[in-house]
Amino acid sequence: MITLTTDFGYRDWFVGSMKGVIKSIAPAADIVDVTHEISPGDIRAASFVLAAAMPYFPKGTIHVAVVDPGVGSGRRAIAVRGQRYTLVGPDNGILTMPMQTDGPCTAVELTDRKFFLSDGSSTFHGRDVFAPVAAHLSRGVSLARMGKPMSRVHRVAVHRPVWRNGIWSGEIVYIDRFGNAITNLEGRKAGGKDVQARVGRMRADGLVPTYDAGKRGQPIALVNSLGLIEMALRGGNAAKRFRIRPGQAVTLIPKRAI
Amino acid sequence: MITLTTDFGYRDWFVGSMKGVIKSIAPAADIVDVTHEISPGDIRAASFVLAAAMPYFPKGTIHVAVVDPGVGSGRRAIAVRGQRYTLVGPDNGILTMPMQTDGPCTAVELTDRKFFLSDGSSTFHGRDVFAPVAAHLSRGVSLARMGKPMSRVHRVAVHRPVWRNGIWSGEIVYIDRFGNAITNLEGRKAGGKDVQARVGRMRADGLVPTYDAGKRGQPIALVNSLGLIEMALRGGNAAKRFRIRPGQAVTLIPKRAI
Amino acid sequence: MITLTTDFGYRDWFVGSMKGVIKSIAPAADIVDVTHEISPGDIRAASFVLAAAMPYFPKGTIHVAVVDPGVGSGRRAIAVRGQRYTLVGPDNGILTMPMQTDGPCTAVELTDRKFFLSDGSSTFHGRDVFAPVAAHLSRGVSLARMGKPMSRVHRVAVHRPVWRNGIWSGEIVYIDRFGNAITNLEGRKAGGKDVQARVGRMRADGLVPTYDAGKRGQPIALVNSLGLIEMALRGGNAAKRFRIRPGQAVTLIPKRAI
Repeated sequence: MITLTTDFGYRDWFVGSMKGVIKSIAPAADIVDVTHEISPGDIRAASFVLAAAMPYFPKGTIHVAVVDPGVGSGRRAIAVRGQRYTLVGPDNGILTMPMQTDGPCTAVELTDRKFFLSDGSSTFHGRDVFAPVAAHLSRGVSLARMGKPMSRVHRVAVHRPVWRNGIWSGEIVYIDRFGNAITNLEGRKAGGKDVQARVGRMRADGLVPTYDAGKRGQPIALVNSLGLIEMALRGGNAAKRFRIRPGQAVTLIPKRAI
Repeated sequence: MITLTTDFGYRDWFVGSMKGVIKSIAPAADIVDVTHEISPGDIRAASFVLAAAMPYFPKGTIHVAVVDPGVGSGRRAIAVRGQRYTLVGPDNGILTMPMQTDGPCTAVELTDRKFFLSDGSSTFHGRDVFAPVAAHLSRGVSLARMGKPMSRVHRVAVHRPVWRNGIWSGEIVYIDRFGNAITNLEGRKAGGKDVQARVGRMRADGLVPTYDAGKRGQPIALVNSLGLIEMALRGGNAAKRFRIRPGQAVTLIPKRAI
Repeated sequence: MITLTTDFGYRDWFVGSMKGVIKSIAPAADIVDVTHEISPGDIRAASFVLAAAMPYFPKGTIHVAVVDPGVGSGRRAIAVRGQRYTLVGPDNGILTMPMQTDGPCTAVELTDRKFFLSDGSSTFHGRDVFAPVAAHLSRGVSLARMGKPMSRVHRVAVHRPVWRNGIWSGEIVYIDRFGNAITNLEGRKAGGKDVQARVGRMRADGLVPTYDAGKRGQPIALVNSLGLIEMALRGGNAAKRFRIRPGQAVTLIPKRAI
């Protein structure tokens, strides 16, 4: 099984070409889209989204991630094998969060052009490098044959929340389709439900169990399905209403301290 | 075969996670997306869309529908077996129109957590309840083992058109991508083609056979591919031009009565 | 393998119905979406997109293309066999560029209703004609049995660039998701990298190797992954910034001639 996570969108031929290449090399490959609607060039969002979906796939799945503004410019192409998965993509940090999720990894720089598309371009490695490499991997070609071992892969900075004087300070890491604002604060460290979550002008009192809690239009905070604290608006779009953006500071304050 | 109809969109990890879960349990499952672009929370639209696509799938297909604003709040999770299909989703009315389409049904409340994802969340039953249940059903687990029989499932109100003094009164039930406004008036009951269809300020004279009939920009009405009367604008977007919305009243008047 | 290229979008039931029909006739068919986000009615864009993706699919793939504003009005339904592929769609020009890409072709008008959906509509041939025909073809039914040979299929005009006094004049043929403006000028005919590409107010000096070349926000031109000259904005959306549209004139001028 091969999954795809890209910023190529659904309206052009990019994704179709990648699938055609995979199927030409590995006709039996089962291809699943994670998403192709990553905002153009948003490496960090792609990293987060793939890390969120990845653990639910069968062991041995090959995950291809391509958000690649530096394609052809000298950044390396890599494949990484973790505990359960193989990851394929550009060495621009996109694999950071999937690698964290998948435990200790070994990485290879993809150098053997025998596993690339012949006559490939310098501007579409999704089709010409990553798709064929994933297809060959799915057919059993070993990672070692694909290129040379690397000791360090590029990583995007992942900020850890800071705990001080009983207050957690973190940040918004992702805004989903519903306008829910996901933080990097883990629910199990929240220290109880009697807290206030703050981001910008938004204040949510207490951690509620479901999106259905509270009154319509009321700001709420809950532990989401990834185990992270998330800020939402019952029946509405929190990010739009409060103009929340990724990277924005979030605090979690015990009610007794307010 | 398993189909998916949700409001999860294509840009996040939600759909990918569901597919990963299904493939982990039933590697041979053939998953087909009906759509994931139901407007967030629009149970009625999801019900209509699934009912429109469903009859074209092979007998035995398992259809999963998840538009679930009340997830985790106590609404039941159900599976329904009709004449040709099995339907899986929350008991919030989303299965109403598919059930009507598929004839007499038996329903089960999904209570056996053995068929759910272990360590599931209370906010993402698409991944944690409906996907694994569909996967187990596709592998042959009987509906009866999944939970307990139900005598009544929740239904959304489905309005029937009213006939009075030779005039049909109905409503708009769906606006499609092209801005075509679909009514709940069945074409075969229209009583001939010499009618005027009215919705808001829009007037379409006669039932035409195709979208290509009439002049460019002219309002038209036709019997669509679901057998329902639909209002369109040749080469344009009728819903935008006339600000038509689901639920809006429609009348069909014999030309001789005008 | 069957691919689909349509303007049906992802939000309604249209694509799901087509897949259900295919799977009902040919359960083992492997269906790949090229795209369903062709702008409604844009036959030329669909033709370009399918031609761009097509060569990357395995030999024998059946490509279905449906952008069909004239559905039911008398335009013919056709299937075309080229050197590597079979193409299925309305005879409205949509197959023009795929046919050019796939070499000499033989065409058949689809007339045998035995291979259509029974009780089909006059408004949704994607579901009722093209999907079942593709499914039967994938099961080995010969093209000859499907209908009668045609000597001429409808084609959209494809403009060739003109070379005069050392200057290439062409046009924009497609704007992609990233706002890159693709021309009909082939990179290998550009006559070197020391050129200026012009479209509207946009000027790009020299052909650069990758999207990463130049400064942020700088107009660039490069040979894209289809071998065509493409105008882009590093880290931005060229089409939006310079209001570029398909059909707009482009010139490629040697720097020494400026």
